[in-house]
Amino acid sequence: MGKLVIITGVPGVGKSTVVQLALEQIKEKYEMTNFGDYMFDAAKEAGLVEHRDEMRTKVPLESYKMIQELAAEKISAKAKEMNIIVDTHLSILKPQGYYPGLPHSVLKKLPLDLLVVVESSRKDIMARRRKDTDVRKREEPIMEQQRLNRMYAAACSVVTGVPVFVLKNEQGKAREAGDKLRMVLERI
Amino acid sequence: MGKLVIITGVPGVGKSTVVQLALEQIKEKYEMTNFGDYMFDAAKEAGLVEHRDEMRTKVPLESYKMIQELAAEKISAKAKEMNIIVDTHLSILKPQGYYPGLPHSVLKKLPLDLLVVVESSRKDIMARRRKDTDVRKREEPIMEQQRLNRMYAAACSVVTGVPVFVLKNEQGKAREAGDKLRMVLERI
Amino acid sequence: MGKLVIITGVPGVGKSTVVQLALEQIKEKYEMTNFGDYMFDAAKEAGLVEHRDEMRTKVPLESYKMIQELAAEKISAKAKEMNIIVDTHLSILKPQGYYPGLPHSVLKKLPLDLLVVVESSRKDIMARRRKDTDVRKREEPIMEQQRLNRMYAAACSVVTGVPVFVLKNEQGKAREAGDKLRMVLERI
Repeated sequence: MGKLVIITGVPGVGKSTVVQLALEQIKEKYEMTNFGDYMFDAAKEAGLVEHRDEMRTKVPLESYKMIQELAAEKISAKAKEMNIIVDTHLSILKPQGYYPGLPHSVLKKLPLDLLVVVESSRKDIMARRRKDTDVRKREEPIMEQQRLNRMYAAACSVVTGVPVFVLKNEQGKAREAGDKLRMVLERI
Repeated sequence: MGKLVIITGVPGVGKSTVVQLALEQIKEKYEMTNFGDYMFDAAKEAGLVEHRDEMRTKVPLESYKMIQELAAEKISAKAKEMNIIVDTHLSILKPQGYYPGLPHSVLKKLPLDLLVVVESSRKDIMARRRKDTDVRKREEPIMEQQRLNRMYAAACSVVTGVPVFVLKNEQGKAREAGDKLRMVLERI
Repeated sequence: MGKLVIITGVPGVGKSTVVQLALEQIKEKYEMTNFGDYMFDAAKEAGLVEHRDEMRTKVPLESYKMIQELAAEKISAKAKEMNIIVDTHLSILKPQGYYPGLPHSVLKKLPLDLLVVVESSRKDIMARRRKDTDVRKREEPIMEQQRLNRMYAAACSVVTGVPVFVLKNEQGKAREAGDKLRMVLERI
């Protein structure tokens, strides 16, 4: 049975860099995956979409939960054989509001060992977003969502019994954050 | 099957006005109901009270949960036939502390589509309360409860998988808030 | 059936003093217990530890949940015969992050009547910690944990339906806090 770690954080928080730095130094092998990729596969199999860019527009809200649950099942099957870090979101900002990325119905399908919440200051998030054409135009209430994500994390922790590791990623200190993540990965 | 939307917010946040403005402009028919009315009906049927004003004093805490669950069942039955907006509270301040308005036992009886959290600044809430003889004398920690309500909302979202729509209602901008609510009601 | 109250708060918040002052004045008999003591008994019976000071080092994270659940069962059995106040934590800061002190699997074993969250200012907590050799050297993010604990409390409240009583314990006003606690104990 492998270890299953979920890593979360609003866009621009520097998740990928921190995970990469952590995995460079660790002895154990971890596979980095994206919850969205598994959701795309599930949506494609369900005949809802053909291309990745249709995920935002063609998956109706009432199918979203089912797609999330199917993705969780696939990840859970994979986690039986290897250590996995899953990149995903505690909340997803949709026109209907903050949609839970890890509702109870999804959590109970995942043999989760750790929930990591990566956080940064508004300034650092904005600076990283300016370099990223995908997110730089988004008008999102960054800090509101980051604060709300902690509340979602606390609820996930109570529901599952899994610890929440809050990881600050300050501009220019990604290596420090990567080291902290590596150390916690070695202890779970 | 109708849509079921719950709208919450501390007294003085301007819920009724915003809902009224949203429903004026929407094509679909929504019935506006109050969770407290259903609780009163349930308490009356259970022989606990005769008049509405006895709800605060005559329903013991140990019966409160049962009354909440009975109310949820009635609302759920009604939601099979029409779209409903239910006005209620995420937390109710009682002498025993913050009592959950939407505990898991109640949530699981409700086929909920959306949870709306209306919020205002302290100044705006105070101004509205001054005009309302029912609440103006209450010495409540307004902002503490409003902040705590978000935490309750996040937990409700994780437990149910339902999105949380945070709606700011600024003094003098009720029409804007009403429009935002209408738009989200049209998308669920 | 006795009443079961859980009292929480970060070290240095003055929990013991407040409970002691509350119990001095109350007519009903309450037994004050510590969740950690029950966990120690359970861990000892499971052959994991021999001495109390091994609890931090010798109980692996994967056994922690089981030990928590066993402790909850013992407390639950005791609560059938008498009123109990259980001193415990909403979150426990471990190398793996914030571990939930009251996950759902533990909560569902406890016939809980009230969850008390004792809070203090950073200054007051620091002052009390300076006098306590056990905690004074800890480098913990005090206020971060205190804020996070409210989120855990809200999630516990939604999951169980139990009210959360937030009790401020200001330096020099322990008697006031004790009175408030006594009054709420008399009302549940």
